[in-house]
Amino acid sequence: MKGKLIGVGVGPGDPDLLTLKAVKAITAADVVGYFAKAGNVSHARRIAEEHFQPHTVELPLLYPVTTEIHRHDAAYRTAIGAFYDASAAAVAEHLMAGRTVAVLSEGDPLFYGSYMHIHVRLAPRFPTQVIAGVTGMSGCWSQAGAPIAQGDDVLMVLPGTLDEDELARRLSSADAAVIMKVGRNLPKIRRALAAAGRLDRALYVERGTMADCAHVPLAEREEERAPYFSIVLVPGWERAA
Amino acid sequence: MKGKLIGVGVGPGDPDLLTLKAVKAITAADVVGYFAKAGNVSHARRIAEEHFQPHTVELPLLYPVTTEIHRHDAAYRTAIGAFYDASAAAVAEHLMAGRTVAVLSEGDPLFYGSYMHIHVRLAPRFPTQVIAGVTGMSGCWSQAGAPIAQGDDVLMVLPGTLDEDELARRLSSADAAVIMKVGRNLPKIRRALAAAGRLDRALYVERGTMADCAHVPLAEREEERAPYFSIVLVPGWERAA
Ligand SMILES: C[S@@+](CC[C@H](N)C(=O)[O-])C[C@H]1O[C@@H](n2cnc3c(N)ncnc32)[C@H](O)[C@@H]1O
Ligand SMILES: C[S@@+](CC[C@H](N)C(=O)[O-])C[C@H]1O[C@@H](n2cnc3c(N)ncnc32)[C@H](O)[C@@H]1O
Repeated sequence: MKGKLIGVGVGPGDPDLLTLKAVKAITAADVVGYFAKAGNVSHARRIAEEHFQPHTVELPLLYPVTTEIHRHDAAYRTAIGAFYDASAAAVAEHLMAGRTVAVLSEGDPLFYGSYMHIHVRLAPRFPTQVIAGVTGMSGCWSQAGAPIAQGDDVLMVLPGTLDEDELARRLSSADAAVIMKVGRNLPKIRRALAAAGRLDRALYVERGTMADCAHVPLAEREEERAPYFSIVLVPGWERAA
Repeated sequence: MKGKLIGVGVGPGDPDLLTLKAVKAITAADVVGYFAKAGNVSHARRIAEEHFQPHTVELPLLYPVTTEIHRHDAAYRTAIGAFYDASAAAVAEHLMAGRTVAVLSEGDPLFYGSYMHIHVRLAPRFPTQVIAGVTGMSGCWSQAGAPIAQGDDVLMVLPGTLDEDELARRLSSADAAVIMKVGRNLPKIRRALAAAGRLDRALYVERGTMADCAHVPLAEREEERAPYFSIVLVPGWERAA
């Protein structure tokens, strides 16, 4: 009997934003896997750890590459592909032995998450379930109390890794927008928002729903550096009642 | 002492997709409000009701208007605006009396949700908190096991109420897309997807995470009618490793 793979969304940061379903899956799993950069704590693990049991076997999946190689380099692609293959193989070994493996994912597993690299490799071979989670962006606009979209609004989710022209062009045609992967892209994002005439409406949210979270209109933020867990929101809802 | 307003996301349908935070807020609230069409059960109430307490006072907020008037009509705008004003006043009365009021919202409260009409009216006057929820779209792509976006993908969230040309134009420039508010708009959505060359990749998901959920490639679905809780997904991730 093969074991079951469960992709578990753990939400944006506040451990209370785990779903009941995620708690049940983590509690019942034989093995709990999670991604982390080598040498760093796993953020997803920290959110979920209070539900680990004495019987829980932990399976850390440690990224070999860091931001030193550019993500469009062939070397990066090769290294990261091999890493996902090896991670999937490590998970598969437990599944072949009949163990249930819960792979944690920050936010929602299938929304820009690393879990999906495991998913596409193993879902064709093993029984698989995905437990939706609260996304980082929902955590951030809730924290800021900012209605993001309503009625006929078109909402765009844009990775901050896009180049400045594309960002500006996309932003000028969106009613509402969320820019993820802010970090070192913040100065570029700010310029693109200004070019699109959206800087005045933009909010910057850092570590949404975590203990040390903060939010501020982007135009008021002086610092040009931003942490990994940061996002820019452009609330829509100009047309609605 | 004024009471506190809490917008509570109850997730896409599966009661186990409530967050721990939502359960705590519902359990502790003096008053639980929820929207419903007159004569219908409230879907949000049904998701959350097992956490209601003997002391819980229920505050149903019943929509006066239905789909008989078109949403762009002045008459609709007036009726719905007056309804939100009256709903906010009913909530405010409890808040003035010092009671905590949890207003339930399907999915996430500030993402195309009715709660935000209460929020914008009352957040300036009362202490307010928003508890993020799992969105309907996350529930749907998780149910379908479909990775929605990765890497540099641009994800667009499009209301199916947009006109056909705008839908087709938007869809052809998106890496990934989610079309909400499908219902009677399905034939139009199908034509727009075909025009944008995206019909082959589109998935149709109905009542995601509910007991009677279903998903199927949209091209294989014959029926032209769709229920209120239905969505179309166009997964991205063409460029990624
Ligand atoms: C690789 S994506 C993972 C998204 C995740 N699967 C989700 O559902 O939110 C990481 C990006 O999400 C955003 N993010 C996630 N959680 C966040 C939080 N709590 N506060 C601010 N940004 C967050 C940041 O922009 C970050 O760069
Ligand atoms: C007014 S919007 C409310 C969205 C909600 N606040 C959320 O966060 O998902 C309602 C639309 O969401 C989509 N939807 C919400 N939950 C769904 C589900 N469980 N299955 C399919 N579609 C759903 C449908 O397209 C529906 O027309």
